[in-house]
Amino acid sequence: MVTPKRFADLELHRFCTEALSKLKVPDGEAQSTADALAYADLRGIDSHGIAHLGRYVRAIRSGAYAVEREIVVVHETPSTALIDGGHGLGFPAAVRSMELAITKAEAVGSSWVATRNSHHFGAAGYYASMALPHDMIGICITNAGPAVVPIFGLRAQIGTNPIAIAVPADKEPPYVLDMATSVKAIGKIEILIRDGAEAPSDWFLQADGSTGGDPQRFISALHGEGLGGQLPLGGCGEQTSGYKGFGLGLGIEILSSILTGNVASPFMPPRRADYAPAIAHLFGAIRVDAFRPAAEFKADVDRILAQIKASPKAAGHDRIWVAGEKEHVILQERRDLGVPLHTEVVQELNTIAVDLDIPLPEIK
Amino acid sequence: MVTPKRFADLELHRFCTEALSKLKVPDGEAQSTADALAYADLRGIDSHGIAHLGRYVRAIRSGAYAVEREIVVVHETPSTALIDGGHGLGFPAAVRSMELAITKAEAVGSSWVATRNSHHFGAAGYYASMALPHDMIGICITNAGPAVVPIFGLRAQIGTNPIAIAVPADKEPPYVLDMATSVKAIGKIEILIRDGAEAPSDWFLQADGSTGGDPQRFISALHGEGLGGQLPLGGCGEQTSGYKGFGLGLGIEILSSILTGNVASPFMPPRRADYAPAIAHLFGAIRVDAFRPAAEFKADVDRILAQIKASPKAAGHDRIWVAGEKEHVILQERRDLGVPLHTEVVQELNTIAVDLDIPLPEIK
Repeated sequence: MVTPKRFADLELHRFCTEALSKLKVPDGEAQSTADALAYADLRGIDSHGIAHLGRYVRAIRSGAYAVEREIVVVHETPSTALIDGGHGLGFPAAVRSMELAITKAEAVGSSWVATRNSHHFGAAGYYASMALPHDMIGICITNAGPAVVPIFGLRAQIGTNPIAIAVPADKEPPYVLDMATSVKAIGKIEILIRDGAEAPSDWFLQADGSTGGDPQRFISALHGEGLGGQLPLGGCGEQTSGYKGFGLGLGIEILSSILTGNVASPFMPPRRADYAPAIAHLFGAIRVDAFRPAAEFKADVDRILAQIKASPKAAGHDRIWVAGEKEHVILQERRDLGVPLHTEVVQELNTIAVDLDIPLPEIK
Repeated sequence: MVTPKRFADLELHRFCTEALSKLKVPDGEAQSTADALAYADLRGIDSHGIAHLGRYVRAIRSGAYAVEREIVVVHETPSTALIDGGHGLGFPAAVRSMELAITKAEAVGSSWVATRNSHHFGAAGYYASMALPHDMIGICITNAGPAVVPIFGLRAQIGTNPIAIAVPADKEPPYVLDMATSVKAIGKIEILIRDGAEAPSDWFLQADGSTGGDPQRFISALHGEGLGGQLPLGGCGEQTSGYKGFGLGLGIEILSSILTGNVASPFMPPRRADYAPAIAHLFGAIRVDAFRPAAEFKADVDRILAQIKASPKAAGHDRIWVAGEKEHVILQERRDLGVPLHTEVVQELNTIAVDLDIPLPEIK
């Protein structure tokens, strides 16, 4: 593997915004999409950053994503809202939804905003984290295309359906959990493929019901070419409780697609370049001071995180990480040194640059 | 193993109520505790039913649980409330909290009610399920005594911190997920010990950092006798994503103990017979019709559950179960045939009967 080239986050942001503007995506929407991709790239969540820009560009050009759409509040109560994303880019619809969740929590203490007819929105943690400056706890879940098999089942039925929870801290980095309910996020598997690495045997179920298999075949299965799929968190079978990972994923499926009346993952047609099934999200906000003074809460978050990290360590390990902490460390580094991009990602950005006639992203 | 004796659920309910009344627990509180234990026993959740009555009786007799207490709403907003459980039995405080969550969701669409200074409340799914007759989605989480080790850490820091999500269906049984965020709930390990069975090697981390170990030693570790503990869902290390199970458990810890200002699991003193650290819960309710008509939603829940269950099956498996379904099947059986209790549980109930001078539970 060659040393990856690094790019300033602002330069990647510029590139993303220009690419989308060329495709007639409104300015505000292009900006908010670029913001969310930069969030991921700056934090080392390489599976959810600009590496996916090509996918969004193709979806817009093929007409799979609507460019002219309205993001509409369909129905609301004091603490809830249903939003229709109008089949466009997921990022702006998600930002609008989380903003509304925050406004409602400000008014009545807590809220849920659900969003249908949306699309891939990058890292769920980005939206959950929007709650942090308001001293709120943020929650974000979403469904996705079918990828994960039920326990003892052979066909991928639900998405990797992630959950993100963001909690403000005082001096510690905020606690930001952002996890697929499958063993790994699909983006992590795409990274394996880019690196030509093998996947551990306990990530996939093959068509014959045995575990193992190569990641490329898994990605093919996602496109409807057969049985098999990804295992839920907890793996397959009873002993390690894979039914919990699947059960959580199915709960998230219900709380997003079924709650909004969106198509649910098991009923989505196989993926095609010119068709992207609509997905659905749910965003939650909880005002900390609805329960106790925010300053006291944040000091106690610091205390518990410090206590966990001070645990006696297993041999060969000198540090315990809590959710969001690695991302925080990488953030400091990448703000200075730039975002390293895999050669294949750089090639794809170059193709986009040529296709759309915009300047190549400049190497830092 | 001998065939266990069976008891009518009403008889166990009578026994539980009488035992608590003898200890001067107010009638309503004794009733609601017996209700919650019967919920678990009738559904095959033997780890969270009357098998634990002895523990509650001892906690009350030793003064670890307050009998005369008030359950107080400390602070509220339209969609939230903080409740203080007054250090008594967890069941009545949890019921009161979930009732308030339902009332608030009825008024404003959704709600969160958090409860501090409470105690063990049985199966989290019981409280989440209270939302079902109201066509609401119910959520319940709680912290618990330290049992689960962080990834690469050797000391148990957080509880098995379960999450329950209950979703109403139409003709299908409701979707009721109720899962510890550890590989297994502690109650399941207690059952292993009663049965004299061995635990799989991937459930525990031993004091030296290796996996495996006998369940009895794990229970001893809970009482402060050394390092080691239970592994989170996902197991130990990076490959199978144990950091997700721990991350979710720590998120639940923060959303219960830290949000309410209760003592958090990592700071609880070792367990003692005469001292039970207060724990904290969080209850959520979401009105389905705040998003779409409940009848349509419930029909779609039926559809997705049927679709998952219709998946092609792995060899040797002829049925796929979804969360809450096994419990629903057992419920039909046990309502007719009675609740089977392990010999050791029957012995403990007999001891309680003698100690408190109440009639033995009658065998069905």
